[in-house]
Amino acid sequence: PNKFCDKTMEIARKTKKLGQDDPRRIVHALKVGLAITLVSLFYYFEPLYDSFGDSAMWAVLTVVLVSEFSVGATLGKGLNRVLATLVAAALGTGAHHLATLSGRKGEPILVATFVFIIAAITTFMRFFPKVKARYDYGMMIFILTFCLVSVSGYRDDQVLKMARERFSTILIGCCASLIVCICIFPVWVGEDLHKSVAANMGKLANFLEAFGDEYFKVSEESNENNKSYLQGYRSVLTSKSSEETMANFARWEPGHGPFGYRHPWKMYLKVGNLTRDCAYKVEALNSYLNSKIQTPAEIRGKIQVPCKSVSLECSRALKEMASTFRNMILTTSAVMHIESSKIAAEELKSLLKTNLWEEADLVEMIPAASVAS
Amino acid sequence: PNKFCDKTMEIARKTKKLGQDDPRRIVHALKVGLAITLVSLFYYFEPLYDSFGDSAMWAVLTVVLVSEFSVGATLGKGLNRVLATLVAAALGTGAHHLATLSGRKGEPILVATFVFIIAAITTFMRFFPKVKARYDYGMMIFILTFCLVSVSGYRDDQVLKMARERFSTILIGCCASLIVCICIFPVWVGEDLHKSVAANMGKLANFLEAFGDEYFKVSEESNENNKSYLQGYRSVLTSKSSEETMANFARWEPGHGPFGYRHPWKMYLKVGNLTRDCAYKVEALNSYLNSKIQTPAEIRGKIQVPCKSVSLECSRALKEMASTFRNMILTTSAVMHIESSKIAAEELKSLLKTNLWEEADLVEMIPAASVAS
Repeated sequence: PNKFCDKTMEIARKTKKLGQDDPRRIVHALKVGLAITLVSLFYYFEPLYDSFGDSAMWAVLTVVLVSEFSVGATLGKGLNRVLATLVAAALGTGAHHLATLSGRKGEPILVATFVFIIAAITTFMRFFPKVKARYDYGMMIFILTFCLVSVSGYRDDQVLKMARERFSTILIGCCASLIVCICIFPVWVGEDLHKSVAANMGKLANFLEAFGDEYFKVSEESNENNKSYLQGYRSVLTSKSSEETMANFARWEPGHGPFGYRHPWKMYLKVGNLTRDCAYKVEALNSYLNSKIQTPAEIRGKIQVPCKSVSLECSRALKEMASTFRNMILTTSAVMHIESSKIAAEELKSLLKTNLWEEADLVEMIPAASVAS
Repeated sequence: PNKFCDKTMEIARKTKKLGQDDPRRIVHALKVGLAITLVSLFYYFEPLYDSFGDSAMWAVLTVVLVSEFSVGATLGKGLNRVLATLVAAALGTGAHHLATLSGRKGEPILVATFVFIIAAITTFMRFFPKVKARYDYGMMIFILTFCLVSVSGYRDDQVLKMARERFSTILIGCCASLIVCICIFPVWVGEDLHKSVAANMGKLANFLEAFGDEYFKVSEESNENNKSYLQGYRSVLTSKSSEETMANFARWEPGHGPFGYRHPWKMYLKVGNLTRDCAYKVEALNSYLNSKIQTPAEIRGKIQVPCKSVSLECSRALKEMASTFRNMILTTSAVMHIESSKIAAEELKSLLKTNLWEEADLVEMIPAASVAS
């Protein structure tokens, strides 16, 4: 019983943390509940129910399946579902009519052949990377609706009515979940992507700021703040796939706030890639911190001042870049910082000719950062 | 029209390439077509149709939704769907009965409240990382079935019959797609994971093998083979998320071939992480190749032999490791190669005391590789 108590407490703690980390999660859960409840009203009110009958259930199912955390994801799934249903319903009706021409005996054989061909081709199309990224859900719904309409036509002669009902209820479901998603505390995935790319730059800047002190530290003690700065960049290394998912969703979103409709989301991926390249270099720098082989103290003393200034200037430049990026205004101070970090790197370079390894990384970081802005 | 022709040709070319890269994709497409056609037979044959009625459609839908490329993914989705439907159908029936106690007027209000609470809680639960990774689909199906059973109970008094029919047709659909998935050219995701981790090690080994030649090359020309070796490792850098997805699916798979039922798939992630750490170091080495600042030729000449031997030995050790890993047998030659690469690194270390940067990376690579084995 004690173990059970501990387990419960831990789950409660985790739940609280999830909610505190991002309160939008709680709002989202309530939004989904609201959307489903709203649409299920169709079922309760006599006049609404009469016009759709049992098909009203499809509206509820659609809301459950389409409601996602962000506007972009919901819109993408909803459009996929509506368009796929429309095309598949039309094709399915056509296949059914074609099959009926061959009589009661031939019909199942013909329909089964159609279903086999369509299902195989569509399943194969899902392997195309571009289709997979944006239309995967639509492809699935396409097969589903096509089977539904063409196969059930064998038992139910009102294929056209069924196809129409299915389409309109799905449209209602999509609209309901979109309205709830956009009107009540909308979560724009484009905004999240924007913030995450800027935050990643900031993490690298924090590392570089702490790196100079840490590497040339005299005493053994190090403050806790630095430690957390030195670890923060690690999440940047593996951010690629989440950024790609976000960019895919962001493309579905209509214009909002500072972002236009055709905001260049692809550029975010490029900036993200450059930031990751920097992060790989930072990872290399980090390995010097933990390496057992250390440069002799005398050499270290010689390069201390210029090295520190390089890492500090780079850090400042990156921070400026991050804030420039965040506010989408190119300030002169950012350009200035890039220049001064380049100068600091040049100074260090001219000082040393034998021990060139370290700052080669930093020098390379600067063009990357410049391109990013 | 010419542009259209080009477009068509390009799509045809891409399609051919997709099929040639992995012929299992074509087989998979045919398998899905077969499974759907098989299940739709339920609808055509009188005796089978009589026992399920219109619910037979659910079996077809289930096959469409559950059929995935690998056995692990199909099994995971199928189990999620069956279990979620079972629990939700039971709860939904309970909610309906509870609601009917409050009379015709109170019933909709009570059911709507239940739906709202269940939907909100379940949606929130989907944010838990562990739930998201393994039970996301089940959670969605849970909300869906719960709504379906409890809401439609208002119009249809045979809730129990509906819940039972829905459950049994979904079970049939899952079984059908599983049988087709496992019996006809099964694709084991665990095997793919195993191969991909080994291949990643091999890519790093290829890089190191080419690196020594490339860095100390005398003439400007470089052969094409080296160039491709030097780029191959880049895909390792971003392999994290795909490895995690594969490991999640692999856990659902039953034992097959050399892999037992509770094969330690988590260890693969650890090995994958170590390989990626090596890849970050390799990325740092690669930046020296392209760096404009080059070590003076005299220093380079001094370190050429030991550096080359370090990179060659590391490459051999990694290759041995990859083949050890692939065959799951620890050979003495692998251990030997690790030892000899350590010795080579030590020799280099003793030769140089000032120019320590480069081999620090290599030395660090060895413990990582050792742990990996």
